[in-house]
Amino acid sequence: MTTAHSEERAARALLTRVVEPGDETGGRWIRHFGAVTVSERLADTDRPLPGVTRARWDGLCNRAAHARTLDDLGTARALGIRLVCPGDSEWPAQLDDLGDTRPVALWVRGLPSLRMWALKSVALVGARACTEYGAHMAAALASGLTERGWVVISGGAYGVDGAAHRGALSADGATVAVLASGVDQAYPRGHTELISRIAGQGLVVSELAPGDHPTPSRFILRNRVIAALTRGTVVVEAAHRSGALATARSATRLGRMTMGVPGPATSALSAGVHQLLRGEAALVTDAAEIIELVGDIGELAPEHRGPVVPRDLLAPATARALAALPPAGTATTEDLARAAASTPDEVTGRLYELRSLGFVEREGGGWRLTGRGRGAGRVGVGEVAEVAEGEGE
Amino acid sequence: MTTAHSEERAARALLTRVVEPGDETGGRWIRHFGAVTVSERLADTDRPLPGVTRARWDGLCNRAAHARTLDDLGTARALGIRLVCPGDSEWPAQLDDLGDTRPVALWVRGLPSLRMWALKSVALVGARACTEYGAHMAAALASGLTERGWVVISGGAYGVDGAAHRGALSADGATVAVLASGVDQAYPRGHTELISRIAGQGLVVSELAPGDHPTPSRFILRNRVIAALTRGTVVVEAAHRSGALATARSATRLGRMTMGVPGPATSALSAGVHQLLRGEAALVTDAAEIIELVGDIGELAPEHRGPVVPRDLLAPATARALAALPPAGTATTEDLARAAASTPDEVTGRLYELRSLGFVEREGGGWRLTGRGRGAGRVGVGEVAEVAEGEGE
Repeated sequence: MTTAHSEERAARALLTRVVEPGDETGGRWIRHFGAVTVSERLADTDRPLPGVTRARWDGLCNRAAHARTLDDLGTARALGIRLVCPGDSEWPAQLDDLGDTRPVALWVRGLPSLRMWALKSVALVGARACTEYGAHMAAALASGLTERGWVVISGGAYGVDGAAHRGALSADGATVAVLASGVDQAYPRGHTELISRIAGQGLVVSELAPGDHPTPSRFILRNRVIAALTRGTVVVEAAHRSGALATARSATRLGRMTMGVPGPATSALSAGVHQLLRGEAALVTDAAEIIELVGDIGELAPEHRGPVVPRDLLAPATARALAALPPAGTATTEDLARAAASTPDEVTGRLYELRSLGFVEREGGGWRLTGRGRGAGRVGVGEVAEVAEGEGE
Repeated sequence: MTTAHSEERAARALLTRVVEPGDETGGRWIRHFGAVTVSERLADTDRPLPGVTRARWDGLCNRAAHARTLDDLGTARALGIRLVCPGDSEWPAQLDDLGDTRPVALWVRGLPSLRMWALKSVALVGARACTEYGAHMAAALASGLTERGWVVISGGAYGVDGAAHRGALSADGATVAVLASGVDQAYPRGHTELISRIAGQGLVVSELAPGDHPTPSRFILRNRVIAALTRGTVVVEAAHRSGALATARSATRLGRMTMGVPGPATSALSAGVHQLLRGEAALVTDAAEIIELVGDIGELAPEHRGPVVPRDLLAPATARALAALPPAGTATTEDLARAAASTPDEVTGRLYELRSLGFVEREGGGWRLTGRGRGAGRVGVGEVAEVAEGEGE
């Protein structure tokens, strides 16, 4: 089980309450001094760390003094929320591309492994006040992507985000909401039920600590996490100056694919997308075109090929789901939940992890082993379980 | 007056009846031997020109034997149709980019100078069975382009073509239909009235002789003339494998701008456009964006700058329209028609020529002199008229 040691975890939990998302100075401190030292120094008002004004330092120390990290970790655990830190086996390595604006840690609600899910994920983002066409496209792309084994990541907002999450859920698919508030906060309020469905069937993620509220800058900075987690960002509908365009620009800066869905030239809600399409974004009209662009060269990103699979990566529940699959033919989620002594939601999460690893594929409404999956199966469930990682703390 | 001499004209008139549009072998013969020699050789069945089978040569000779060129030229003149040949001052030099597939000559109906109009022209093309959205966009782009002094060229067909021509006409604007039949043939029949309106207010053009009918290959090959005449081609709506895509590909090959109007990702009639937009085509949503792309570096293409303006280019009727403009402020087409002792249609044609030369501009519903126009006006109408070109034969 690879997790950061508890002092480091407590420090990072504290820092998620103190350092604002995307704060480069905070990121630099953590890189130079380590999270533990930074959190200790925040208790010492008189010795400011370099690069901030006195007033700002006082503000940070004040925040730190009011944070109750052990309470946070305890409360979070009680709510089914875990802290995922850099170095944990669940940490999505691609977030490191953010450099000093990398999240200090991520608070995560939901059963599946964020790292596994993010391996083959696409961001669908767009206008809150989208048109019926935008909502239709978001849902259709999301269900098309999840039906092909891809994970849909979005921001949980009204409009395009919501339609994307719902499209994924309705296809029994994998979806992740990255919030600009604590993962226990349903924002917007009208999405309370949607967000708890996502937490049940997928993942709800935030770099903000439980209980924290969104601010305009947190919305904007949340977008870099969506862009960094995914292989590419698709903007479905966006007016000029839409926040979705910020996500797209982040994606381009990070070397991810940026894509746009065209719409009527007469629609103000497609004007921002058309602007992107005149620049670096690629035009996409269906899920297959997206997948062609985000690439699927083999089933795993190169750094995960070879001996790390499956020994280093399969959690016990994932190994049980793999073992439940019939050697030939397909099985439904319900069959597999029964066979693995689990629930359909839990099993769905595991199946998408296995899909990311190239062990299983969807066929019709069911799931089947791939050639690689049959190979991995030969390892034996016991053996896999023996060396598997734990989740969270 | 710069026109090809009458033997050459008669030969080319004959060859428009004999050589199919875009026939490279025919084009090569004309380049090597000259139009007169080629037309003479076509009377000598036993001495085939190189590069064709005997059967094909016999077919060409048979066609030539049945063509009555002098009748053609006489009938055409009576119908108000003129023949424009390479070397004529009305010949649009950009057609020479077609190399050996350059039209042998063009039959033209309408008052304005084709060469002048084509200088600042854009092709709007697309599906015959277009949607309401496609028709709306074609009309809006056409009226926007003509309001800014650009000439709209299309193929006179149902759907996008018709909407483009009508949009231009409704804005009192300049439009050219390039037909795949003789210019006296209304094809499609349902566009009889539209095509005669275009001939009255603009130009109807074809490389086929009067009386000739369209064939599938003539439709396709007509598209290269539309692409070559214009600074850029905009595809408004097109399904996969639409003929409009052939026009766009011609434009790209010829180094012209290729543009596409996005539409809903769900529309099969935008799928062809989206395919273009994934390649070399630029995305456009309004007339201003088109004009930005087809360029307007000064008012004239470089090769026409300097002393050739106005002396070499102004026809008497054009010079009279220029002289009719007030030194300051705007005048309506009706005012100008009265002042130039002409008709509104005739004056509109001349004004768009002057617009191409940068002498006048539209403002509101009227026309005004530009700085260059005021300079040109100082030359004096008599002096301009003295050196001006004639039209047609």
